[in-house]
Amino acid sequence: MAKTNSGRFFEDYTVGETLHHAVPRTVKMGERALYHMLYPARHALYSSDQFAQSSGLPFSPLDDLIAFHIVFGKTVPDVSLNAVANLGYAQGRWLAPVWPGDTLRSQSEVIGLKQNSNGKTGVVYVRTTGLNQHDEPVLEYVRWVMVRKRDVDAPAPETVVPDLPKALSADQLVIPKGLDFTNYDFTLAGEAHRLSDYEIGEQIDHVDGVTVEEAEHMMATRLWQNTAKVHFDTAARPDGTRLIYGGHVISMARALSFNGLANAQMIVGLNGGAHANPCLAGDTIRAWSEVIDKAETDAPGVGAIRLRLVATKGGDPFALRGEDGKYLPDVLLDLDYWALMPL
Amino acid sequence: MAKTNSGRFFEDYTVGETLHHAVPRTVKMGERALYHMLYPARHALYSSDQFAQSSGLPFSPLDDLIAFHIVFGKTVPDVSLNAVANLGYAQGRWLAPVWPGDTLRSQSEVIGLKQNSNGKTGVVYVRTTGLNQHDEPVLEYVRWVMVRKRDVDAPAPETVVPDLPKALSADQLVIPKGLDFTNYDFTLAGEAHRLSDYEIGEQIDHVDGVTVEEAEHMMATRLWQNTAKVHFDTAARPDGTRLIYGGHVISMARALSFNGLANAQMIVGLNGGAHANPCLAGDTIRAWSEVIDKAETDAPGVGAIRLRLVATKGGDPFALRGEDGKYLPDVLLDLDYWALMPL
Amino acid sequence: MAKTNSGRFFEDYTVGETLHHAVPRTVKMGERALYHMLYPARHALYSSDQFAQSSGLPFSPLDDLIAFHIVFGKTVPDVSLNAVANLGYAQGRWLAPVWPGDTLRSQSEVIGLKQNSNGKTGVVYVRTTGLNQHDEPVLEYVRWVMVRKRDVDAPAPETVVPDLPKALSADQLVIPKGLDFTNYDFTLAGEAHRLSDYEIGEQIDHVDGVTVEEAEHMMATRLWQNTAKVHFDTAARPDGTRLIYGGHVISMARALSFNGLANAQMIVGLNGGAHANPCLAGDTIRAWSEVIDKAETDAPGVGAIRLRLVATKGGDPFALRGEDGKYLPDVLLDLDYWALMPL
Repeated sequence: MAKTNSGRFFEDYTVGETLHHAVPRTVKMGERALYHMLYPARHALYSSDQFAQSSGLPFSPLDDLIAFHIVFGKTVPDVSLNAVANLGYAQGRWLAPVWPGDTLRSQSEVIGLKQNSNGKTGVVYVRTTGLNQHDEPVLEYVRWVMVRKRDVDAPAPETVVPDLPKALSADQLVIPKGLDFTNYDFTLAGEAHRLSDYEIGEQIDHVDGVTVEEAEHMMATRLWQNTAKVHFDTAARPDGTRLIYGGHVISMARALSFNGLANAQMIVGLNGGAHANPCLAGDTIRAWSEVIDKAETDAPGVGAIRLRLVATKGGDPFALRGEDGKYLPDVLLDLDYWALMPL
Repeated sequence: MAKTNSGRFFEDYTVGETLHHAVPRTVKMGERALYHMLYPARHALYSSDQFAQSSGLPFSPLDDLIAFHIVFGKTVPDVSLNAVANLGYAQGRWLAPVWPGDTLRSQSEVIGLKQNSNGKTGVVYVRTTGLNQHDEPVLEYVRWVMVRKRDVDAPAPETVVPDLPKALSADQLVIPKGLDFTNYDFTLAGEAHRLSDYEIGEQIDHVDGVTVEEAEHMMATRLWQNTAKVHFDTAARPDGTRLIYGGHVISMARALSFNGLANAQMIVGLNGGAHANPCLAGDTIRAWSEVIDKAETDAPGVGAIRLRLVATKGGDPFALRGEDGKYLPDVLLDLDYWALMPL
Repeated sequence: MAKTNSGRFFEDYTVGETLHHAVPRTVKMGERALYHMLYPARHALYSSDQFAQSSGLPFSPLDDLIAFHIVFGKTVPDVSLNAVANLGYAQGRWLAPVWPGDTLRSQSEVIGLKQNSNGKTGVVYVRTTGLNQHDEPVLEYVRWVMVRKRDVDAPAPETVVPDLPKALSADQLVIPKGLDFTNYDFTLAGEAHRLSDYEIGEQIDHVDGVTVEEAEHMMATRLWQNTAKVHFDTAARPDGTRLIYGGHVISMARALSFNGLANAQMIVGLNGGAHANPCLAGDTIRAWSEVIDKAETDAPGVGAIRLRLVATKGGDPFALRGEDGKYLPDVLLDLDYWALMPL
């Protein structure tokens, strides 16, 4: 009896089945400290208990992207071990803060399947939910990946492609219970700009860059118990390079965006995202943002800002696609998210 | 008066003396988080408080190898600063879990001495015990190292070689108080295989590999307050390479063995081990295991599995020694241990 | 409206103004664990709750240099983003221990300004104070930096140069409340030498060296939320190297000084310091110390030792300056501090 997990292939998925991902994880302040070591993260709500308390929370929760990475990492052995490409995200919502001491686990429902015309691969759509120790959902998102078939002669499943709206509307966002920005201290937070200071269409160059190292991205990826071979093993790819986990680029870009978006405190919605080009050690990650939308919320003093966050490894800020409509070769990430910001 | 520690030489040891190693260390969840960042560790009992509670423990203890590395690290300034080689381990037993908040210290009794025929070095045998803040032993093991003489003309001590059985018998293993695997959740743990699914003699290729970096092994080794120069200082070895701490290879291989041995939850016995060849940054560590023995225990649902764990930097899985009986050059580690697994 | 922070230039400072630095930070044991991973830190009071308790403290505080780095890091966006050079430190005092769970913030008073004769730069003197969540000061120090002018034609401010004594006297040092070394355990601490064993003028070569890596210094610097571009971005300096944060060298040298100064437990005063030459990845940091002064304190069994700590990347130990009076090219750091040691 084979003991090791060789991962699922395209024909192993059935629409409607639920995958219960392994290895729950208790997270505490150690993970927070590591996040601050791995990324230049400075958003005040995730840095200071007192700042969180003055914003109506009992204390500072763990960063929204820590929750994302842990929930995501657990899905890798069941969803993306034989993936050719991570194609997209949609309908991501943070549903409750993750507190130090919480234990997270993940499960995914298969919501779509579409074999590719070459007959060798197919697209698998899953809706992944992260749950805490009270079985309360803390995060959900849809992801679709291209997965190899084990047997090219296996019959194609019925095609089911879920209807995925391009973005969440602001009223779909879940605001953490008690959040209140009416006493917001802009000096402690680091910048004076409130939601009304941002214009739809405004673009912000976040200026700073970080040159990334092999040791850093491997440690970050391991921290989320993400086991995909291409991140760790120089024998896994033909050219001997280790591909940097796309989530490492997301966290780096989000942290760099503090410079200009210090008050976009909490990510609460993930509308979509593309890992446009591979990132490798030695690349210098830079970031720019564009304001896509703004909205009020029911929470006192709390607004929502919809942002495009683009990570690059060079090139002109604000350049995104070439004349052919394809991402420029220096673009690493094109992310569309909602964050909460004082009105 | 010289203020710095130049380490002990062979003639500085006396059979029967006890070395009280310096610098006690309080460990908490931060060390756990770091362990998860440094190694692809996923065993559920050390990852989730809830999983540990469903196994009869009050919450999740710190990984068995964290305890080993911390206890070991403290012995370096007194035992292996002038060591030529770390020759072996025997009779290692984990005696009590290490809980977040515990403070660990180490002491070693010199149990054997044997001068080598060249008159320049000798073998020192110590039994090291790790103790917590209640002076309860949490770990004990025998280690023997080859140590330089300060003065080659110093007289040879009487030869004392301790009688070290090749392995612990299963009834010598100490099971953590309360441990109960009768409600074990194999889905959350990550694999379906219980003790009865493993055959004595069965070999498992753990498939995955991790290419290691200088920054990682130095951070890991420092974390255990291990101060041996060869790990940190490019001037310490003639070829300018930094030798990777053997314990780093142990932890990496053990973590990789999750893939195929996810239910070998807790290491409770160390029968023996050899660091077969040096490991250097840039090497890709892989691992395979062989089932040596199986046993029941007195704890409900809890069995014990004796495993050979071999780490390599390449070569064929399951290859160990050449025709000359020596370890093959790609073999890094040959470890013999007992772990607890659901029956 | 520009959203990003381009930093302050020389003409933006006014003597007497107070800068309230952004992003308070709650620190816990995770930061301690990271400090032990990044540096070979072994001082017992900062390693063991029990050792701290036997020294009269409720438990082990966070390392003195963790407090320094966090307080310092917060000042970078307001003080040194456009700095040409960090010129010196003076009058640094640790005023209260930092406990796990404390939240730190920083503020700086501008206490001096002096435009340079070239008209392009000027020297800014600030007194920085770190405060905890009770608004109690935990640390204060004076730092002066050379800052670029935005507009070379901006008028020079009135020259104000603060009077900065070359060193704190022993009676200016603040001893943590309750500290008592009368039951000090020299074996657990790692060395037998008490204050009376050290002679003024005595020099100690700390023997060990650590070759530093890019990943390590970037992680350390990020951990303190220090955002200076030169540490992270290979495009920030003409030669493509990343300059290692001077504080990384301070912590590395201080940790190496354990070997010979294991009982210099707590830093309580910073008399002065110079970052003599840049440190780059690949350098091997070594350290030596010289005893400058000794004093008694009011606390039972507690003495104070004033030390010069020199970090080098090679060269002869105890060599500091050339015949021209300038620091030798291998000298990285020349630090003058007070530490507490058992009498």
